Amino acid sequence: MGWEANVRTVTPYVAGEQPKEQGVIKLNTNESPYPPAPGVARALREYDADILRKYPDAETEPLLSELAAYYGVEKEQVFVGVGSDDVLAMAFLTFFNHPTLPVLFPDITYSFYDVWAELFRIPYEVQMLDGQFRIKEEDYHKPNGGVIIPNPNAPTGELAPMQMFENILRANPDVVCIVDEAYIDFGGESCLKLIDRYENLLVVRTFSKSRALAGMRIGYAFGSKKLIRCLQDVKYSFNSYTMNSITLAAGVEAVRDDAYFKEITKKVITTRERSKRELAALGFSFPDSKSNFIFATHEKYDAKELFEALRAHNIYVRHWDKPRIGNYLRISIGTDEEMDTLFAFLKEYCRA
Amino acid sequence: MGWEANVRTVTPYVAGEQPKEQGVIKLNTNESPYPPAPGVARALREYDADILRKYPDAETEPLLSELAAYYGVEKEQVFVGVGSDDVLAMAFLTFFNHPTLPVLFPDITYSFYDVWAELFRIPYEVQMLDGQFRIKEEDYHKPNGGVIIPNPNAPTGELAPMQMFENILRANPDVVCIVDEAYIDFGGESCLKLIDRYENLLVVRTFSKSRALAGMRIGYAFGSKKLIRCLQDVKYSFNSYTMNSITLAAGVEAVRDDAYFKEITKKVITTRERSKRELAALGFSFPDSKSNFIFATHEKYDAKELFEALRAHNIYVRHWDKPRIGNYLRISIGTDEEMDTLFAFLKEYCRA
Repeated sequence: MGWEANVRTVTPYVAGEQPKEQGVIKLNTNESPYPPAPGVARALREYDADILRKYPDAETEPLLSELAAYYGVEKEQVFVGVGSDDVLAMAFLTFFNHPTLPVLFPDITYSFYDVWAELFRIPYEVQMLDGQFRIKEEDYHKPNGGVIIPNPNAPTGELAPMQMFENILRANPDVVCIVDEAYIDFGGESCLKLIDRYENLLVVRTFSKSRALAGMRIGYAFGSKKLIRCLQDVKYSFNSYTMNSITLAAGVEAVRDDAYFKEITKKVITTRERSKRELAALGFSFPDSKSNFIFATHEKYDAKELFEALRAHNIYVRHWDKPRIGNYLRISIGTDEEMDTLFAFLKEYCRA
Repeated sequence: MGWEANVRTVTPYVAGEQPKEQGVIKLNTNESPYPPAPGVARALREYDADILRKYPDAETEPLLSELAAYYGVEKEQVFVGVGSDDVLAMAFLTFFNHPTLPVLFPDITYSFYDVWAELFRIPYEVQMLDGQFRIKEEDYHKPNGGVIIPNPNAPTGELAPMQMFENILRANPDVVCIVDEAYIDFGGESCLKLIDRYENLLVVRTFSKSRALAGMRIGYAFGSKKLIRCLQDVKYSFNSYTMNSITLAAGVEAVRDDAYFKEITKKVITTRERSKRELAALGFSFPDSKSNFIFATHEKYDAKELFEALRAHNIYVRHWDKPRIGNYLRISIGTDEEMDTLFAFLKEYCRA
């Protein structure tokens, strides 16, 4: 049929499995092991459904103002979208339009970047991480059509120093540089403080990890007013209302309860540090993660076989059949109890 | 600054005003004057917020299956998005990729079509409606890169006969034809029955009008399995999870309560027919709307002045400063009480 000749050719991103069975230990998509802030449940319970007959606030209020106040920026410096994937997709579409120069990002990184580049037909060129899975700053000091780097990087968990980003920004005033901070709340230093100095910096965040709201789909970004205005214009050219009313109300509650946010974040960090010790004792090695996951390998065991063995025992982690990382597993940090079940299994596995 | 040179140039769509004041009679965005089905409120009230820490179902279940069952199609023939705007944006991106031939749509129509075409740099050519604001079928019998027509058309409210769409589909097997049925539930005959015969037909719908859920952002579409698969692939290349968990649950309740759906739709139709009589008696003329709005003009009064006068009295309708329709107002159908307030004002206005 002729119509198929005009269909956009894509290779979709493949997300981690969402098993429907009960009783699964789900350490494969970096979700929070803790529920969202209690205010979220209350907001849903008390929500006046009659409001839903009207369109939501196109400017994403009241969440926009809540985020601006919490992070100490002006609301014209904030953008809100349907998860950070929506924010990043809009950012690729908005900012990465150089006709020939490639967008640069690491070879081992969030595997959606090349999908967006292909979707929007943006030239790109991956930059090899070093042997310790570290970003080599010099790779980003050459002509390019834009830069995107996660910090901490995923799936490695490796945090890059703030100075590196400042150097990259200084070297690239003519393109937009995106720092994808999906995991920054688990111990990293944010580039947010740089937005007033670098007009071309976009810092992207999510409610899906540290704010325990993956199911609600909320992402956000910070940048100069001029940068955010460009992003808004493209967003308004795509869909006037991406954020529904109830999501905006629930998001406000998640931001407002700072004590709860700090409490669950701290718990994840504590469990992560303990998990590092447990895994190291079993002979695993891994980059020193500052995220809510650990990217681990074991010289004696095949990662894919271990992945299958874990899965057969209802423990889901993430494995990619890809160059350089084929013998690694990305393990999300669960509750202490979930991690203990994992370690018990691994102890048996290593003994057998 | 150099980075701005690579920013995508767009002219965003401008949605109808969402006034924040209380006591406004809002007849400007074709929302439902009635609340969503009672099951929606119950779903929110009883929702287990703990679910939100996990990602939603990427396949948009359980809403996908509910829609398939209700409309008697297979679930592989259904697509769900963040309002029909999201569905349409994805469809433009997926299907309208002919390098040179233009996408065709009416000159007077939903004013987002040209915005999406510009956003994605798709060539397009508008086709003039006739003097009675009717689509001329022959305009769509020429080489093109795709066709999109709303039925009923907006902002005219005019319904085109099913046979016209069948003729256009038959004449255009090599491109995708989209029928945008945002307003079909208010008395039109749907092209849904044609999807089994025309592999290149996409029928797009929304929960924002007849299902009273504009604030929830739910759109959907029907097509052949092959067509829907293409749309899904692009969607998964943009954002793995566009629909949040609670929206999927609420959407199910809106579909399930068929009696309520039929009741509120019937009420809107009854009020619309009465409104036609009232407006005609005041000397207004309008196409015979089969939607939840009336596109009215009066030879004695300037539409823009009337728009401003209504607004000053807290009655919001829609006006466009555009060729051919500059002397028209689009009036959404509200409750009988809201419409009576409108008619009382218009009677005074016409007397003065």
